[in-house]
Amino acid sequence: MEMGYCELRNRLQIACVLGAIISLSSPVTYGAKILVVPIDGSHWINMKILIEELKNHGHNITALYSSKAWYIKESPDLYQSITVQLQGGTTKFDDSRGIQHFLDKLLTTLRHGLTPWAFILVQNEMISFLREWHLWAGAFITRIFEDEKLLKQLEETNFDLVLTDPALGIGSMLAHYLKAPLVYNVRWITRGEAHFLFAPSPLSYIPLLGSHLTDKMNFLQRVQNVLQHFLELFISEFFIHPIYNEACRRYLGTDIDIKTVLLQADVWLMRVDFVFEFPRPTMPNIVYIGGFQCKSPKPLPVGLERFVQTSGKYGIIVMSLGSLVNSLPLDITMKIAEAFAQVPQKVIWRHNGKIPPNIANNTLLAKWIPQNDLLGHPKTQAFVAHGGTNGIYEAIYHGVPVVGLPLFYDQFDNLIRLKVRGAAKIVDAATMQSLDLLQALNEVINNASYRVNMQKLSSLHRDQLESPMRRAVFWIEYVARHRGAAHLRSEFYRLPWYTYYCVDVLALLLSVFLIAAMLIVLILKRFCSVVGKKKQKTQ
Amino acid sequence: MEMGYCELRNRLQIACVLGAIISLSSPVTYGAKILVVPIDGSHWINMKILIEELKNHGHNITALYSSKAWYIKESPDLYQSITVQLQGGTTKFDDSRGIQHFLDKLLTTLRHGLTPWAFILVQNEMISFLREWHLWAGAFITRIFEDEKLLKQLEETNFDLVLTDPALGIGSMLAHYLKAPLVYNVRWITRGEAHFLFAPSPLSYIPLLGSHLTDKMNFLQRVQNVLQHFLELFISEFFIHPIYNEACRRYLGTDIDIKTVLLQADVWLMRVDFVFEFPRPTMPNIVYIGGFQCKSPKPLPVGLERFVQTSGKYGIIVMSLGSLVNSLPLDITMKIAEAFAQVPQKVIWRHNGKIPPNIANNTLLAKWIPQNDLLGHPKTQAFVAHGGTNGIYEAIYHGVPVVGLPLFYDQFDNLIRLKVRGAAKIVDAATMQSLDLLQALNEVINNASYRVNMQKLSSLHRDQLESPMRRAVFWIEYVARHRGAAHLRSEFYRLPWYTYYCVDVLALLLSVFLIAAMLIVLILKRFCSVVGKKKQKTQ
Repeated sequence: MEMGYCELRNRLQIACVLGAIISLSSPVTYGAKILVVPIDGSHWINMKILIEELKNHGHNITALYSSKAWYIKESPDLYQSITVQLQGGTTKFDDSRGIQHFLDKLLTTLRHGLTPWAFILVQNEMISFLREWHLWAGAFITRIFEDEKLLKQLEETNFDLVLTDPALGIGSMLAHYLKAPLVYNVRWITRGEAHFLFAPSPLSYIPLLGSHLTDKMNFLQRVQNVLQHFLELFISEFFIHPIYNEACRRYLGTDIDIKTVLLQADVWLMRVDFVFEFPRPTMPNIVYIGGFQCKSPKPLPVGLERFVQTSGKYGIIVMSLGSLVNSLPLDITMKIAEAFAQVPQKVIWRHNGKIPPNIANNTLLAKWIPQNDLLGHPKTQAFVAHGGTNGIYEAIYHGVPVVGLPLFYDQFDNLIRLKVRGAAKIVDAATMQSLDLLQALNEVINNASYRVNMQKLSSLHRDQLESPMRRAVFWIEYVARHRGAAHLRSEFYRLPWYTYYCVDVLALLLSVFLIAAMLIVLILKRFCSVVGKKKQKTQ
Repeated sequence: MEMGYCELRNRLQIACVLGAIISLSSPVTYGAKILVVPIDGSHWINMKILIEELKNHGHNITALYSSKAWYIKESPDLYQSITVQLQGGTTKFDDSRGIQHFLDKLLTTLRHGLTPWAFILVQNEMISFLREWHLWAGAFITRIFEDEKLLKQLEETNFDLVLTDPALGIGSMLAHYLKAPLVYNVRWITRGEAHFLFAPSPLSYIPLLGSHLTDKMNFLQRVQNVLQHFLELFISEFFIHPIYNEACRRYLGTDIDIKTVLLQADVWLMRVDFVFEFPRPTMPNIVYIGGFQCKSPKPLPVGLERFVQTSGKYGIIVMSLGSLVNSLPLDITMKIAEAFAQVPQKVIWRHNGKIPPNIANNTLLAKWIPQNDLLGHPKTQAFVAHGGTNGIYEAIYHGVPVVGLPLFYDQFDNLIRLKVRGAAKIVDAATMQSLDLLQALNEVINNASYRVNMQKLSSLHRDQLESPMRRAVFWIEYVARHRGAAHLRSEFYRLPWYTYYCVDVLALLLSVFLIAAMLIVLILKRFCSVVGKKKQKTQ
């Protein structure tokens, strides 16, 4: 105690002020050891962009993924790779064939529109596809947790944090095992849209993803929304979560389930921006980074720029169905080609399948396109897109109105969010005729309101104190710096549902009220009868 | 249409990019016309700090307040003043006498601790004090809306936004009338803590302010929390809101009530930080600016610095009961003086009332102290405070542990938030003996954990991407720039409560379920009886 409190205090304060200065100066250049457990496919695209930025900030990244990964490749200058060898042959998740097969089936089912029967078939398809995916994740988890050497290696590295996409439960379980702080790059969890797990989500104005609803619902739509919520709970409870719960019990502890594990994240970097998503309740440890992958356009390759310039005053249309889908069935692509043939614009179409024979001179097919640079090109008039979030945010960022051809999952819902703001038109890919697409294109390009509305979204989206990417990196570093962010996690996850909703309290209050009411009635009855008897007596 | 879409687009895009650049560069130097409708007293202290910063950013401020305001004075270099002359003599809200009288009554009532009877008396005191305050506001509103010249002047100024503290409903009603975008500097609304109006607030883990509870409640505490919630609703519904609702109907429209008016704010700058407040659900248009008034300490005046230095290795204790309360009753201040006399530290005590005769040599009394500079002084060991949020945030910012002497409203609750984090001790001012305070002081100063915990809160609080003040100014400018922030306001406020909670949907689903169950039972009964008859026949 000889040192004196003041001196001790001074030192602490200096350390603290230094900490604040370090955190305010950008970038924070200290090498955190980060274990990334990514998800393959389109999820990897934005995770990789985040990894690149973390690398730029001097952090050491280790990525853990399947040795047969489809998109994720070794990249020693960006991250160390730990690959996990799965038993058995290739699966449908190792390349595009699985999703292509799924899409073909879907489009065939929906050929006559979304009839009730088609709805049931589609739901069934989706559930079994999802279940297979989570079963694959279950096998992956087993492989990791049965590999003592790997576990030891991970434990000894003593990671500062785990960064994962919790659409599969792998990374969360690993973070729990390693007792490491946990950050999500997230829009989906194992049970559906991520907010629904832990932010209050009144079903009266928050539509489920997949419902095709908006935040303004009539009575029947609300009934649909509630029913779909129960359906989702049912599916996750009986088809998805048991896969993880068994693994949790086996490898993490008998009283641990996947919900508890998922909720242990310190910070949720949510790929959402309220320019796009309907406003809804949120939580203090959700950080919104929607559009973090967007950036200013680079000049186009010379040949492409020349093609774009030939469009003259009409400009160009850009079309892409994203990274997962290789191609649509030929009859549909022919209808698209027919529509494109009739617009005065030039068209650049990212296309991998069979070339439609009726392709016109104004249309350029390419196996890959510099999508961001094209969307940021001043000649671009419209974006024909499937409605994946990566593309949607790029369209918002660059202010390009959209003609949507949604295929599955959240794509219709994503597009609906642009549609209600007057920035997109939606065409049903399964049932459309070429005229539908042509009309939508003409409407979106020639009716100035679409562009004006999209530009308004763009200017709101760009008007932020710091870029979403800067925010993402800050919060990852924050969690590493403070070994977590426990003070931002609410108490609710400790409570059983009847406590959370105060059902027990209301039951007590109701009982007290009823007993009191009964007592009063009894007393009044007794009083009346006594008075009655007295009256009889006096009579 | 000769201009061509591309060119139009180019111009729009340039405008949009310029907008983004302007918003990223700091400060934004364009003069928005801002109408500030402040609240007098301690609320004014932080509103004034915000006004100073807005002035620094080049905005033109007009402040509207009572000509008899207690704290708010004319300040032409900071803001234009519009003063409203209230009819009648001075009221208890024009100086410190009202609150002093209220405090004296409270302390007398609580002299024997918080007995059930004392609780009822205190509640009664609080409600009538609150009601008088809102009646005063009602008179203020009448005065404004009956003054056609004033209204015309306000309308013609065409303000870019209204900035107000909605603890009284004046500013919100005015913004509604002027159809101006609306920003709140807020912790309280007319009905209690502001979150409870429009962010989902599960009573199972979110304690009401005034409940003295934390986010970890047992069953009985939850019962208390629920009952208090109903009490608050009852009070606001029958004693507070009718005052405003009548004014709304008279001046804004027959279908407008105060709740609708309050909810029209575009952005809520909430004087809360989750280092201090328990984590809880929030909304997209809440921006947390807790501690925005904190700043680095300036050097002390020479005489004061000399006194501080005489404290040697023991350091100093700072005491202040905030700006509203002039003094405690003499018997209480004597106990405080007695405790201070027994500590080895020097004490600096902001004190305005009768000087306690037993004041010791180590204690310096002052009518005003540079509180922020003293709390930021390296010699400061502890802060004896009443628990108002301004002081609490300064203590957090500077990492000084607190001994709390809470007096009324949220002060006990504020201190409890520090206490559960091991950064404060609370002493009951009404019932304490000098030994209680002495022990609390010794504990907080000599047990290092209090300082360490407070330093931890401080380092978390200071570790932000931008200062809370920067955030406040950005969002005010954002709302002015975009003429509101409608895209951040959720749909819930349009819904009646039974729709919001899906009571109608659940009633339908339950009915369908019951009817189906009844049908099945009926069919089974019929079936059984038919089978039974057949059996009888065959027998």
